[in-house]
Amino acid sequence: MLRRFSVRRVADAGTERVTDQIAVEEPLAILVKHWAKDASITTNLAVTMRTPGHDKELAAGLLLAEGVIRGRADLIEVRVLGSEPSNEVLVELAQGVDFESWRLARNGFVSSSCGVCGKRSRDAIQQDMPPIEAGEFRVSPQIIHDLPAALRAHQPGFTETGGLHAAALVTGGGETEAVFEDIGRHNALDKLIGWALLHGRIPLRERIVFMSSRGSFELVQKAAMAGAPILATVGGPSSLAVETARDLQMTLLGFVRDGRFNVYSGEWRIDS
Amino acid sequence: MLRRFSVRRVADAGTERVTDQIAVEEPLAILVKHWAKDASITTNLAVTMRTPGHDKELAAGLLLAEGVIRGRADLIEVRVLGSEPSNEVLVELAQGVDFESWRLARNGFVSSSCGVCGKRSRDAIQQDMPPIEAGEFRVSPQIIHDLPAALRAHQPGFTETGGLHAAALVTGGGETEAVFEDIGRHNALDKLIGWALLHGRIPLRERIVFMSSRGSFELVQKAAMAGAPILATVGGPSSLAVETARDLQMTLLGFVRDGRFNVYSGEWRIDS
Repeated sequence: MLRRFSVRRVADAGTERVTDQIAVEEPLAILVKHWAKDASITTNLAVTMRTPGHDKELAAGLLLAEGVIRGRADLIEVRVLGSEPSNEVLVELAQGVDFESWRLARNGFVSSSCGVCGKRSRDAIQQDMPPIEAGEFRVSPQIIHDLPAALRAHQPGFTETGGLHAAALVTGGGETEAVFEDIGRHNALDKLIGWALLHGRIPLRERIVFMSSRGSFELVQKAAMAGAPILATVGGPSSLAVETARDLQMTLLGFVRDGRFNVYSGEWRIDS
Repeated sequence: MLRRFSVRRVADAGTERVTDQIAVEEPLAILVKHWAKDASITTNLAVTMRTPGHDKELAAGLLLAEGVIRGRADLIEVRVLGSEPSNEVLVELAQGVDFESWRLARNGFVSSSCGVCGKRSRDAIQQDMPPIEAGEFRVSPQIIHDLPAALRAHQPGFTETGGLHAAALVTGGGETEAVFEDIGRHNALDKLIGWALLHGRIPLRERIVFMSSRGSFELVQKAAMAGAPILATVGGPSSLAVETARDLQMTLLGFVRDGRFNVYSGEWRIDS
Protein backbone atom coordinates (compact mmCIF):
# COMPACT_ATOMS: atom_id res chain seq x y z
CA MET A 1 0.00 0.00 0.00
CA LEU A 2 3.06 2.25 0.30
CA ARG A 3 5.83 3.24 -2.09
CA ARG A 4 9.11 5.01 -1.28
CA PHE A 5 10.13 8.24 -2.99
CA SER A 6 13.18 10.42 -2.56
CA VAL A 7 12.03 13.98 -1.88
CA ARG A 8 13.48 17.29 -0.71
CA ARG A 9 12.15 18.62 2.62
CA VAL A 10 12.27 22.40 2.99
CA ALA A 11 12.01 24.08 6.39
CA ASP A 12 13.20 27.31 7.96
CA ALA A 13 16.17 25.47 9.39
CA GLY A 14 17.29 24.37 5.91
CA THR A 15 16.62 21.62 3.40
CA GLU A 16 17.40 17.94 3.42
CA ARG A 17 16.86 14.96 1.15
CA VAL A 18 14.62 12.34 2.75
CA THR A 19 12.81 9.14 1.77
CA ASP A 20 9.06 9.56 2.01
CA GLN A 21 6.52 6.70 2.19
CA ILE A 22 3.57 7.51 0.00
CA ALA A 23 0.18 5.84 -0.32
CA VAL A 24 -0.15 3.97 -3.60
CA GLU A 25 -2.83 5.08 -6.06
CA GLU A 26 -3.46 3.01 -9.22
CA PRO A 27 -6.42 2.59 -11.57
CA LEU A 28 -8.62 -0.49 -11.19
CA ALA A 29 -10.79 -1.56 -14.13
CA ILE A 30 -13.99 -3.32 -13.07
CA LEU A 31 -15.54 -5.59 -15.70
CA VAL A 32 -18.99 -7.12 -15.33
CA LYS A 33 -20.10 -10.37 -16.96
CA HIS A 34 -23.88 -10.29 -17.20
CA TRP A 35 -26.67 -12.01 -19.11
CA ALA A 36 -28.97 -10.82 -21.87
CA LYS A 37 -31.44 -13.55 -22.80
CA ASP A 38 -29.27 -16.66 -23.04
CA ALA A 39 -25.94 -15.04 -23.90
CA SER A 40 -23.38 -13.60 -21.52
CA ILE A 41 -21.81 -10.21 -22.21
CA THR A 42 -18.75 -8.68 -20.58
CA THR A 43 -18.91 -4.91 -20.10
CA ASN A 44 -16.34 -2.43 -18.83
CA LEU A 45 -18.25 -0.98 -15.91
CA ALA A 46 -15.74 1.38 -14.40
CA VAL A 47 -12.23 2.54 -13.84
CA THR A 48 -11.69 3.72 -10.29
CA MET A 49 -8.54 5.11 -8.69
CA ARG A 50 -7.75 3.05 -5.63
CA THR A 51 -5.01 1.75 -3.36
CA PRO A 52 -4.31 -1.84 -4.52
CA GLY A 53 -5.44 -4.62 -2.19
CA HIS A 54 -8.83 -6.23 -1.56
CA ASP A 55 -9.83 -5.47 -5.13
CA LYS A 56 -12.43 -8.23 -5.17
CA GLU A 57 -14.06 -6.74 -2.08
CA LEU A 58 -13.92 -3.29 -3.67
CA ALA A 59 -15.69 -4.48 -6.82
CA ALA A 60 -18.34 -6.45 -4.94
CA GLY A 61 -18.97 -3.59 -2.52
CA LEU A 62 -19.21 -1.01 -5.29
CA LEU A 63 -21.82 -3.10 -7.10
CA LEU A 64 -23.89 -3.48 -3.94
CA ALA A 65 -23.52 0.17 -2.94
CA GLU A 66 -24.50 1.33 -6.42
CA GLY A 67 -27.53 -0.94 -6.56
CA VAL A 68 -26.37 -3.29 -9.34
CA ILE A 69 -26.76 -6.25 -6.98
CA ARG A 70 -28.86 -6.66 -3.86
CA GLY A 71 -27.16 -9.57 -2.12
CA ARG A 72 -24.71 -12.44 -2.25
CA ALA A 73 -27.03 -14.52 -4.45
CA ASP A 74 -26.68 -12.01 -7.29
CA LEU A 75 -22.95 -12.77 -7.55
CA ILE A 76 -21.56 -15.90 -9.15
CA GLU A 77 -17.88 -15.05 -8.75
CA VAL A 78 -15.44 -12.18 -8.39
CA ARG A 79 -11.93 -12.77 -9.70
CA VAL A 80 -8.76 -10.88 -10.45
CA LEU A 81 -7.76 -11.02 -14.15
CA GLY A 82 -4.20 -11.86 -15.11
CA SER A 83 -1.38 -12.36 -12.69
CA GLU A 84 -1.07 -10.23 -9.58
CA PRO A 85 -0.37 -7.41 -9.13
CA SER A 86 -3.29 -6.80 -11.48
CA ASN A 87 -5.39 -3.76 -12.15
CA GLU A 88 -8.41 -5.63 -13.52
CA VAL A 89 -11.17 -7.50 -11.76
CA LEU A 90 -14.15 -9.34 -13.26
CA VAL A 91 -17.50 -9.69 -11.52
CA GLU A 92 -19.79 -12.40 -12.86
CA LEU A 93 -23.45 -11.73 -12.15
CA ALA A 94 -26.17 -14.34 -11.70
CA GLN A 95 -28.52 -14.82 -14.59
CA GLY A 96 -31.49 -12.99 -13.10
CA VAL A 97 -29.65 -9.70 -12.47
CA ASP A 98 -30.93 -6.98 -14.82
CA PHE A 99 -27.70 -5.13 -15.52
CA GLU A 100 -28.98 -3.37 -18.64
CA SER A 101 -31.87 -1.65 -16.86
CA TRP A 102 -29.52 -0.49 -14.15
CA ARG A 103 -27.15 0.93 -16.72
CA LEU A 104 -29.85 2.69 -18.71
CA ALA A 105 -31.00 4.46 -15.55
CA ARG A 106 -27.53 5.97 -15.19
CA ASN A 107 -27.31 8.24 -18.20
CA GLY A 108 -25.15 11.32 -17.83
CA PHE A 109 -22.61 10.48 -15.27
CA VAL A 110 -19.59 12.07 -13.65
CA SER A 111 -18.35 12.73 -10.17
CA SER A 112 -16.81 15.47 -8.14
CA SER A 113 -13.58 13.56 -7.92
CA CYS A 114 -13.25 11.89 -11.26
CA GLY A 115 -10.60 12.96 -13.67
CA VAL A 116 -9.76 9.59 -15.13
CA CYS A 117 -13.18 8.42 -16.00
CA GLY A 118 -13.26 6.04 -18.91
CA LYS A 119 -9.54 6.07 -19.48
CA ARG A 120 -7.95 2.71 -19.24
CA SER A 121 -4.30 3.33 -18.50
CA ARG A 122 -1.84 5.93 -17.37
CA ASP A 123 -0.43 6.16 -20.86
CA ALA A 124 -3.83 6.96 -22.31
CA ILE A 125 -4.32 9.70 -19.75
CA GLN A 126 -0.94 11.27 -20.13
CA GLN A 127 -0.97 11.53 -23.89
CA ASP A 128 -3.82 13.99 -23.59
CA MET A 129 -2.03 16.52 -21.41
CA PRO A 130 -0.41 19.60 -22.88
CA PRO A 131 3.20 20.30 -21.85
CA ILE A 132 3.72 22.74 -19.00
CA GLU A 133 4.87 26.06 -20.50
CA ALA A 134 6.29 28.08 -17.68
CA GLY A 135 9.64 29.31 -18.96
CA GLU A 136 12.01 30.26 -16.15
CA PHE A 137 9.29 30.62 -13.52
CA ARG A 138 10.67 30.12 -9.99
CA VAL A 139 9.44 30.96 -6.50
CA SER A 140 11.11 31.43 -3.15
CA PRO A 141 10.41 29.04 -0.25
CA GLN A 142 9.01 31.91 1.80
CA ILE A 143 6.16 32.39 -0.68
CA ILE A 144 5.29 28.72 -0.20
CA HIS A 145 5.50 28.92 3.59
CA ASP A 146 3.03 31.84 3.50
CA LEU A 147 0.39 30.01 1.43
CA PRO A 148 -1.63 28.44 4.30
CA ALA A 149 -2.11 31.71 6.17
CA ALA A 150 -3.12 33.48 2.96
CA LEU A 151 -5.62 30.75 2.14
CA ARG A 152 -7.19 30.82 5.59
CA ALA A 153 -7.76 34.55 5.21
CA HIS A 154 -9.78 33.86 2.02
CA GLN A 155 -11.66 30.76 3.18
CA PRO A 156 -14.71 31.83 5.21
CA GLY A 157 -16.61 28.57 4.68
CA PHE A 158 -13.94 26.34 6.12
CA THR A 159 -13.53 28.50 9.19
CA GLU A 160 -17.19 28.07 10.03
CA THR A 161 -17.79 24.45 9.10
CA GLY A 162 -14.48 22.66 8.92
CA GLY A 163 -16.01 20.93 5.91
CA LEU A 164 -15.08 22.86 2.78
CA HIS A 165 -12.01 22.52 0.59
CA ALA A 166 -10.44 25.50 -1.15
CA ALA A 167 -8.36 26.08 -4.27
CA ALA A 168 -6.35 29.29 -4.62
CA LEU A 169 -4.53 30.88 -7.54
CA VAL A 170 -1.38 32.65 -6.36
CA THR A 171 1.26 34.65 -8.25
CA GLY A 172 4.98 34.09 -7.92
CA GLY A 173 5.07 37.17 -5.69
CA GLY A 174 2.56 35.65 -3.29
CA GLU A 175 -0.53 37.59 -4.34
CA THR A 176 -3.78 35.60 -4.07
CA GLU A 177 -5.78 36.24 -7.23
CA ALA A 178 -8.77 33.97 -6.68
CA VAL A 179 -10.07 31.43 -4.15
CA PHE A 180 -12.96 28.99 -4.60
CA GLU A 181 -14.47 26.75 -1.97
CA ASP A 182 -16.44 23.55 -2.35
CA ILE A 183 -17.25 20.42 -0.40
CA GLY A 184 -15.33 18.53 -3.10
CA ARG A 185 -11.67 19.32 -3.68
CA HIS A 186 -12.01 18.58 -7.39
CA ASN A 187 -14.95 20.93 -7.68
CA ALA A 188 -12.97 23.69 -5.98
CA LEU A 189 -10.21 23.26 -8.56
CA ASP A 190 -12.70 23.02 -11.45
CA LYS A 191 -14.24 26.34 -10.32
CA LEU A 192 -10.80 27.94 -10.23
CA ILE A 193 -9.91 26.64 -13.68
CA GLY A 194 -13.29 27.66 -15.08
CA TRP A 195 -12.89 31.17 -13.65
CA ALA A 196 -9.47 31.45 -15.28
CA LEU A 197 -10.85 30.13 -18.57
CA LEU A 198 -13.75 32.59 -18.63
CA HIS A 199 -11.31 35.42 -17.86
CA GLY A 200 -8.85 34.47 -20.63
CA ARG A 201 -6.12 33.32 -18.23
CA ILE A 202 -5.52 29.80 -19.53
CA PRO A 203 -2.80 28.46 -19.56
CA LEU A 204 -1.94 29.41 -15.96
CA ARG A 205 1.64 30.45 -16.67
CA GLU A 206 3.72 31.67 -13.72
CA ARG A 207 1.07 30.76 -11.17
CA ILE A 208 0.86 28.48 -8.12
CA VAL A 209 -2.31 26.45 -7.56
CA PHE A 210 -2.66 25.89 -3.83
CA MET A 211 -5.19 23.45 -2.38
CA SER A 212 -6.32 22.70 1.16
CA SER A 213 -6.56 18.97 0.44
CA ARG A 214 -4.29 16.04 -0.27
CA GLY A 215 -2.76 15.76 -3.72
CA SER A 216 -4.39 13.06 -5.84
CA PHE A 217 -3.57 12.09 -9.40
CA GLU A 218 -6.75 13.76 -10.54
CA LEU A 219 -5.73 17.12 -9.11
CA VAL A 220 -2.36 16.89 -10.88
CA GLN A 221 -4.17 16.07 -14.10
CA LYS A 222 -6.60 18.98 -13.78
CA ALA A 223 -3.81 21.43 -12.92
CA ALA A 224 -1.83 20.16 -15.90
CA MET A 225 -4.77 20.61 -18.25
CA ALA A 226 -4.90 24.23 -17.09
CA GLY A 227 -1.14 24.61 -17.61
CA ALA A 228 -0.20 25.33 -13.98
CA PRO A 229 3.56 24.89 -13.35
CA ILE A 230 3.26 24.48 -9.55
CA LEU A 231 0.66 22.55 -7.55
CA ALA A 232 0.97 22.79 -3.76
CA THR A 233 -1.25 21.02 -1.23
CA VAL A 234 -1.70 21.08 2.54
CA GLY A 235 -1.88 17.28 2.66
CA GLY A 236 0.33 14.64 1.11
CA PRO A 237 0.28 13.35 -2.47
CA SER A 238 -0.46 9.88 -3.81
CA SER A 239 2.14 7.77 -5.61
CA LEU A 240 0.47 8.38 -8.97
CA ALA A 241 0.30 12.12 -8.33
CA VAL A 242 4.08 12.16 -7.82
CA GLU A 243 4.81 9.93 -10.81
CA THR A 244 2.56 11.98 -13.09
CA ALA A 245 3.96 15.33 -11.94
CA ARG A 246 7.48 14.03 -12.63
CA ASP A 247 6.48 12.87 -16.11
CA LEU A 248 4.92 16.25 -16.86
CA GLN A 249 7.75 18.26 -15.31
CA MET A 250 5.22 19.93 -13.02
CA THR A 251 6.40 21.08 -9.60
CA LEU A 252 4.45 19.20 -6.91
CA LEU A 253 4.66 20.30 -3.26
CA GLY A 254 2.98 18.54 -0.33
CA PHE A 255 2.52 18.94 3.43
CA VAL A 256 2.69 22.71 2.97
CA ARG A 257 2.06 23.77 6.58
CA ASP A 258 3.73 24.81 9.79
CA GLY A 259 6.69 26.42 8.07
CA ARG A 260 7.78 23.44 6.04
CA PHE A 261 6.97 21.53 2.84
CA ASN A 262 8.15 18.60 0.73
CA VAL A 263 9.18 18.89 -2.93
CA TYR A 264 8.04 15.78 -4.81
CA SER A 265 8.75 16.94 -8.35
CA GLY A 266 10.21 19.87 -10.26
CA GLU A 267 12.72 21.09 -7.68
CA TRP A 268 14.25 23.60 -10.10
CA ARG A 269 11.27 25.94 -9.66
CA ILE A 270 11.97 26.39 -5.92
CA ASP A 271 14.86 28.73 -5.06
CA SER A 272 17.48 27.17 -2.85
CA MET B 1 -22.68 27.76 1.18
CA LEU B 2 -23.79 26.96 4.74
CA ARG B 3 -27.02 25.64 6.24
CA ARG B 4 -28.02 25.52 9.91
CA PHE B 5 -29.04 22.30 11.63
CA SER B 6 -30.07 21.61 15.21
CA VAL B 7 -27.88 18.82 16.57
CA ARG B 8 -27.06 17.18 19.89
CA ARG B 9 -23.45 17.53 21.07
CA VAL B 10 -22.23 14.73 23.34
CA ALA B 11 -19.16 15.14 25.51
CA ASP B 12 -17.90 13.69 28.76
CA ALA B 13 -19.25 16.72 30.58
CA GLY B 14 -22.79 16.06 29.29
CA THR B 15 -24.92 16.73 26.26
CA GLU B 16 -26.37 19.93 24.87
CA ARG B 17 -28.47 20.96 21.89
CA VAL B 18 -26.60 23.31 19.58
CA THR B 19 -27.03 24.84 16.14
CA ASP B 20 -24.37 23.63 13.73
CA GLN B 21 -23.41 25.32 10.45
CA ILE B 22 -22.93 22.71 7.78
CA ALA B 23 -21.46 22.96 4.28
CA VAL B 24 -24.15 22.62 1.62
CA GLU B 25 -23.95 19.69 -0.81
CA GLU B 26 -26.39 19.49 -3.73
CA PRO B 27 -26.34 17.78 -7.15
CA LEU B 28 -25.51 19.85 -10.22
CA ALA B 29 -26.55 18.56 -13.63
CA ILE B 30 -24.24 19.69 -16.43
CA LEU B 31 -25.78 19.69 -19.93
CA VAL B 32 -23.75 20.16 -23.07
CA LYS B 33 -25.10 21.60 -26.33
CA HIS B 34 -22.88 20.38 -29.14
CA TRP B 35 -22.97 19.98 -32.90
CA ALA B 36 -23.18 16.94 -35.16
CA LYS B 37 -23.05 17.97 -38.78
CA ASP B 38 -25.44 20.94 -38.96
CA ALA B 39 -27.72 20.07 -36.06
CA SER B 40 -27.24 20.87 -32.40
CA ILE B 41 -27.81 18.20 -29.76
CA THR B 42 -28.14 18.67 -26.02
CA THR B 43 -26.65 15.86 -23.91
CA ASN B 44 -26.69 15.24 -20.16
CA LEU B 45 -22.97 15.14 -19.52
CA ALA B 46 -22.82 14.74 -15.79
CA VAL B 47 -24.33 15.04 -12.37
CA THR B 48 -21.77 16.12 -9.81
CA MET B 49 -22.22 16.72 -6.08
CA ARG B 50 -21.07 20.22 -5.27
CA THR B 51 -21.50 23.20 -2.98
CA PRO B 52 -23.75 25.65 -4.90
CA GLY B 53 -22.09 28.82 -6.19
CA HIS B 54 -19.93 29.54 -9.24
CA ASP B 55 -21.67 26.75 -11.10
CA LYS B 56 -20.80 28.24 -14.48
CA GLU B 57 -17.13 28.26 -13.53
CA LEU B 58 -17.44 24.69 -12.28
CA ALA B 59 -18.93 23.48 -15.56
CA ALA B 60 -16.42 25.35 -17.73
CA GLY B 61 -13.49 24.19 -15.60
CA LEU B 62 -14.66 20.58 -15.61
CA LEU B 63 -14.89 20.57 -19.40
CA LEU B 64 -11.39 22.00 -19.75
CA ALA B 65 -9.91 19.70 -17.10
CA GLU B 66 -11.52 16.65 -18.71
CA GLY B 67 -10.31 17.58 -22.17
CA VAL B 68 -13.70 18.28 -23.78
CA ILE B 69 -12.54 21.81 -24.62
CA ARG B 70 -9.05 23.23 -24.99
CA GLY B 71 -9.65 26.95 -24.58
CA ARG B 72 -12.08 29.85 -24.37
CA ALA B 73 -12.76 29.73 -28.12
CA ASP B 74 -14.36 26.29 -27.78
CA LEU B 75 -17.12 27.76 -25.60
CA ILE B 76 -20.01 29.80 -26.95
CA GLU B 77 -21.80 30.31 -23.65
CA VAL B 78 -22.31 28.86 -20.19
CA ARG B 79 -25.64 29.58 -18.52
CA VAL B 80 -27.69 28.52 -15.53
CA LEU B 81 -31.03 26.93 -16.50
CA GLY B 82 -34.21 28.05 -14.79
CA SER B 83 -34.39 30.53 -11.95
CA GLU B 84 -31.76 30.55 -9.25
CA PRO B 85 -31.10 28.71 -7.02
CA SER B 86 -30.81 26.19 -9.83
CA ASN B 87 -29.13 22.82 -10.03
CA GLU B 88 -28.72 22.78 -13.82
CA VAL B 89 -26.20 24.48 -16.04
CA LEU B 90 -25.91 24.35 -19.84
CA VAL B 91 -22.62 24.65 -21.71
CA GLU B 92 -22.88 25.49 -25.40
CA LEU B 93 -19.85 24.35 -27.39
CA ALA B 94 -18.49 25.95 -30.55
CA GLN B 95 -19.28 24.15 -33.77
CA GLY B 96 -15.81 22.68 -34.32
CA VAL B 97 -15.63 20.87 -30.95
CA ASP B 98 -15.79 17.09 -31.44
CA PHE B 99 -17.83 16.11 -28.41
CA GLU B 100 -18.81 12.69 -29.76
CA SER B 101 -15.22 11.50 -30.17
CA TRP B 102 -14.43 12.63 -26.67
CA ARG B 103 -17.42 10.76 -25.31
CA LEU B 104 -16.66 7.56 -27.18
CA ALA B 105 -13.16 7.54 -25.70
CA ARG B 106 -14.68 7.44 -22.23
CA ASN B 107 -16.39 4.07 -22.18
CA GLY B 108 -16.69 2.38 -18.81
CA PHE B 109 -16.73 5.12 -16.32
CA VAL B 110 -17.03 5.52 -12.58
CA SER B 111 -15.13 7.18 -9.79
CA SER B 112 -13.89 6.47 -6.32
CA SER B 113 -16.30 8.99 -4.89
CA CYS B 114 -19.38 8.65 -7.00
CA GLY B 115 -22.52 7.23 -5.55
CA VAL B 116 -25.02 9.39 -7.34
CA CYS B 117 -23.79 8.98 -10.84
CA GLY B 118 -26.49 9.34 -13.44
CA LYS B 119 -29.24 9.97 -10.98
CA ARG B 120 -30.95 13.27 -11.47
CA SER B 121 -32.55 14.11 -8.13
CA ARG B 122 -32.58 13.25 -4.46
CA ASP B 123 -35.95 11.59 -4.86
CA ALA B 124 -34.62 9.29 -7.54
CA ILE B 125 -31.70 8.31 -5.34
CA GLN B 126 -33.67 7.74 -2.22
CA GLN B 127 -36.32 5.52 -3.75
CA ASP B 128 -33.65 2.93 -4.34
CA MET B 129 -32.52 2.55 -0.77
CA PRO B 130 -33.77 -0.25 1.43
CA PRO B 131 -35.11 0.74 4.86
CA ILE B 132 -32.70 0.41 7.77
CA GLU B 133 -33.63 -2.72 9.70
CA ALA B 134 -31.93 -2.46 13.05
CA GLY B 135 -34.65 -3.23 15.58
CA GLU B 136 -33.86 -1.84 19.01
CA PHE B 137 -30.12 -1.49 18.38
CA ARG B 138 -28.56 1.18 20.65
CA VAL B 139 -25.03 2.03 21.72
CA SER B 140 -23.53 3.91 24.64
CA PRO B 141 -21.63 7.18 24.12
CA GLN B 142 -18.47 5.58 25.53
CA ILE B 143 -18.35 3.10 22.63
CA ILE B 144 -18.43 6.07 20.24
CA HIS B 145 -15.75 7.98 22.16
CA ASP B 146 -13.48 4.93 21.89
CA LEU B 147 -13.79 4.59 18.09
CA PRO B 148 -10.86 6.83 17.04
CA ALA B 149 -8.32 5.06 19.24
CA ALA B 150 -9.53 1.65 18.07
CA LEU B 151 -9.29 2.72 14.42
CA ARG B 152 -5.76 4.10 14.80
CA ALA B 153 -4.69 0.75 16.22
CA HIS B 154 -5.91 -0.95 13.00
CA GLN B 155 -4.71 1.63 10.50
CA PRO B 156 -1.04 1.04 9.72
CA GLY B 157 -1.09 2.84 6.38
CA PHE B 158 -2.34 6.12 7.74
CA THR B 159 0.20 6.13 10.52
CA GLU B 160 3.02 5.92 8.01
CA THR B 161 1.77 8.16 5.24
CA GLY B 162 -0.93 10.41 6.60
CA GLY B 163 -2.61 9.79 3.28
CA LEU B 164 -4.96 6.82 3.61
CA HIS B 165 -8.59 6.76 4.70
CA ALA B 166 -10.04 3.89 6.69
CA ALA B 167 -13.46 2.31 7.16
CA ALA B 168 -14.13 0.10 10.19
CA LEU B 169 -16.97 -2.24 11.10
CA VAL B 170 -17.63 -2.18 14.84
CA THR B 171 -20.14 -4.07 16.99
CA GLY B 172 -22.41 -2.44 19.55
CA GLY B 173 -20.03 -3.70 22.23
CA GLY B 174 -17.08 -1.87 20.64
CA GLU B 175 -15.37 -4.83 18.96
CA THR B 176 -13.66 -3.95 15.66
CA GLU B 177 -14.53 -6.72 13.17
CA ALA B 178 -12.83 -5.39 10.03
CA VAL B 179 -10.85 -2.37 8.82
CA PHE B 180 -10.03 -1.44 5.23
CA GLU B 181 -7.75 1.35 4.06
CA ASP B 182 -7.64 3.18 0.76
CA ILE B 183 -6.56 6.50 -0.65
CA GLY B 184 -10.26 7.10 -1.42
CA ARG B 185 -12.77 7.14 1.40
CA HIS B 186 -15.45 5.68 -0.86
CA ASN B 187 -13.16 2.83 -1.86
CA ALA B 188 -12.44 2.06 1.79
CA LEU B 189 -16.19 1.79 2.44
CA ASP B 190 -16.76 -0.25 -0.74
CA LYS B 191 -14.07 -2.71 0.39
CA LEU B 192 -15.74 -3.01 3.79
CA ILE B 193 -19.18 -3.56 2.25
CA GLY B 194 -17.77 -6.06 -0.27
CA TRP B 195 -16.05 -7.98 2.51
CA ALA B 196 -19.31 -8.15 4.43
CA LEU B 197 -21.20 -9.24 1.31
CA LEU B 198 -18.74 -12.01 0.49
CA HIS B 199 -18.97 -13.22 4.11
CA GLY B 200 -22.78 -13.27 4.19
CA ARG B 201 -23.06 -10.34 6.58
CA ILE B 202 -25.33 -8.04 4.59
CA PRO B 203 -27.44 -6.24 5.84
CA LEU B 204 -25.11 -4.85 8.51
CA ARG B 205 -27.61 -5.09 11.37
CA GLU B 206 -26.46 -3.93 14.81
CA ARG B 207 -23.18 -2.56 13.51
CA ILE B 208 -21.45 0.83 13.48
CA VAL B 209 -19.59 1.91 10.34
CA PHE B 210 -16.80 4.26 11.39
CA MET B 211 -14.81 6.30 8.89
CA SER B 212 -11.72 8.48 9.19
CA SER B 213 -13.10 11.02 6.72
CA ARG B 214 -15.84 13.61 6.48
CA GLY B 215 -19.41 12.40 5.97
CA SER B 216 -20.64 13.00 2.42
CA PHE B 217 -23.99 12.09 0.95
CA GLU B 218 -22.37 9.28 -0.97
CA LEU B 219 -21.06 7.63 2.21
CA VAL B 220 -24.54 7.78 3.75
CA GLN B 221 -25.95 6.23 0.61
CA LYS B 222 -23.40 3.42 0.54
CA ALA B 223 -23.88 2.66 4.25
CA ALA B 224 -27.64 2.63 3.71
CA MET B 225 -27.36 0.22 0.79
CA ALA B 226 -25.46 -2.09 3.13
CA GLY B 227 -28.11 -1.68 5.84
CA ALA B 228 -25.88 -0.05 8.47
CA PRO B 229 -27.92 1.65 11.24
CA ILE B 230 -25.09 3.93 12.46
CA LEU B 231 -22.51 5.84 10.41
CA ALA B 232 -19.89 7.74 12.42
CA THR B 233 -17.12 9.92 10.95
CA VAL B 234 -14.08 11.76 12.31
CA GLY B 235 -14.90 14.82 10.18
CA GLY B 236 -18.14 16.71 9.72
CA PRO B 237 -21.05 15.82 7.43
CA SER B 238 -22.50 17.68 4.46
CA SER B 239 -26.01 19.11 4.45
CA LEU B 240 -27.24 16.39 2.11
CA ALA B 241 -25.66 13.68 4.25
CA VAL B 242 -27.67 14.94 7.24
CA GLU B 243 -30.91 15.33 5.29
CA THR B 244 -30.58 11.87 3.76
CA ALA B 245 -29.73 10.18 7.05
CA ARG B 246 -32.80 11.81 8.62
CA ASP B 247 -35.02 10.62 5.77
CA LEU B 248 -33.66 7.09 6.10
CA GLN B 249 -33.78 7.05 9.90
CA MET B 250 -30.07 6.26 9.94
CA THR B 251 -28.02 7.47 12.91
CA LEU B 252 -25.34 9.89 11.66
CA LEU B 253 -22.53 11.01 13.98
CA GLY B 254 -19.81 13.52 13.09
CA PHE B 255 -16.69 15.10 14.60
CA VAL B 256 -16.10 11.87 16.53
CA ARG B 257 -12.81 12.78 18.20
CA ASP B 258 -11.24 14.12 21.36
CA GLY B 259 -13.93 12.69 23.63
CA ARG B 260 -16.92 14.30 21.95
CA PHE B 261 -19.22 13.91 18.95
CA ASN B 262 -22.30 15.45 17.33
CA VAL B 263 -25.52 13.55 16.65
CA TYR B 264 -27.01 14.73 13.34
CA SER B 265 -29.71 12.11 12.95
CA GLY B 266 -31.24 9.12 14.74
CA GLU B 267 -30.63 10.21 18.33
CA TRP B 268 -32.64 7.32 19.72
CA ARG B 269 -29.83 4.88 19.00
CA ILE B 270 -27.43 6.71 21.36
CA ASP B 271 -28.01 6.06 25.08
CA SER B 272 -28.49 9.20 27.11
